[in-house]
Amino acid sequence: VIPKNIQLILASASPRRSELLRQMGEIFKIIPANCNETLQLNLTIAENATLLAKKKAEFVAAKIDEAALIIGADTLVSVDGNILGQPQNREQSAQMLSQLSGKSHEVTTGVCIIGKEPKYFQNFCVTTKVVFNTLTREEIEAYIDTKEPMDKAGSYAIQGKAAVFVKEIHGDYYNVVGLPLSRLYEELKRYNEFWKTKNNK
Amino acid sequence: VIPKNIQLILASASPRRSELLRQMGEIFKIIPANCNETLQLNLTIAENATLLAKKKAEFVAAKIDEAALIIGADTLVSVDGNILGQPQNREQSAQMLSQLSGKSHEVTTGVCIIGKEPKYFQNFCVTTKVVFNTLTREEIEAYIDTKEPMDKAGSYAIQGKAAVFVKEIHGDYYNVVGLPLSRLYEELKRYNEFWKTKNNK
Repeated sequence: VIPKNIQLILASASPRRSELLRQMGEIFKIIPANCNETLQLNLTIAENATLLAKKKAEFVAAKIDEAALIIGADTLVSVDGNILGQPQNREQSAQMLSQLSGKSHEVTTGVCIIGKEPKYFQNFCVTTKVVFNTLTREEIEAYIDTKEPMDKAGSYAIQGKAAVFVKEIHGDYYNVVGLPLSRLYEELKRYNEFWKTKNNK
Repeated sequence: VIPKNIQLILASASPRRSELLRQMGEIFKIIPANCNETLQLNLTIAENATLLAKKKAEFVAAKIDEAALIIGADTLVSVDGNILGQPQNREQSAQMLSQLSGKSHEVTTGVCIIGKEPKYFQNFCVTTKVVFNTLTREEIEAYIDTKEPMDKAGSYAIQGKAAVFVKEIHGDYYNVVGLPLSRLYEELKRYNEFWKTKNNK
């Protein structure tokens, strides 16, 4: 989608995000952002996700000199207004899965796109509602045994064995995996239009 | 999920369905059903999907002697009440994608589970609503160039490059890929309970 002479950079170490961007057919370089991911209590969940995405994109943009477009993203899982992070141990994992059991929660991904030469800035945020089946104690324990929950926000991977726990979703599926592909594609097209206008001048 | 001494059989040649069943962690054998897939005009879309799934499961069940559980499935894509099949050429593919552009359509998967020794029968049907972005002529042509639409009902693969066309879905994502994983898992658990009751007698 983006111009051939613009280097696309994904400011994320997440293998899921790389895979999604590859699925879109984009060619890109990965430069993980190593920045402070502290949440701001005075901001909403959507604002926090967007701010973290911006921090990541800015962190990488500051290190780059070439004509590039940098994508930063951050995904937050929340239930009843409380953000669930990545579980640190079995107990936290079991507690998060119990919180998700039998009801709906929200997955919010903030995305920030920063262009260098020409300068460009865009950020946005997409939320998907996810409805879980009621999970038994045995199902939660068996799922933790697979080790899948360990590096996942909210302690599950919809693209993995937790697929069977998800009764339905409302919104973009790929947003739950880690990148809102449909909206990102629209924004990359918009950047492309911007770039063309800039270069015809 | 199902008892160890029951052979699980997928009555489908679809590589997507095999992959989904594998994602659930199930071990199974594939025996494609080779039966008449004609649609019945006097039946609804949901009834047709369920009937085709039943035909496929019955076709394979008739060939099996062992203690087995056979899963048949059929996925129908429909827009404004009209079923879209698999495109036979570029023109059909372009026409289907134009029909899906900028609005919502339905993906319905019928599933039939047939058990042999002990006898078991269950069928059900799951529908997911899929909302497409507006596609340009260029996007449609570029997508057809990828060859992805060719063996797909409705001329797209949500798990492939058409991901960016899908604004949102309402329901089970995996149902759009070809198997309603969450409901299937519930039904396999139900079969397991049935089998236990049967074998404790």
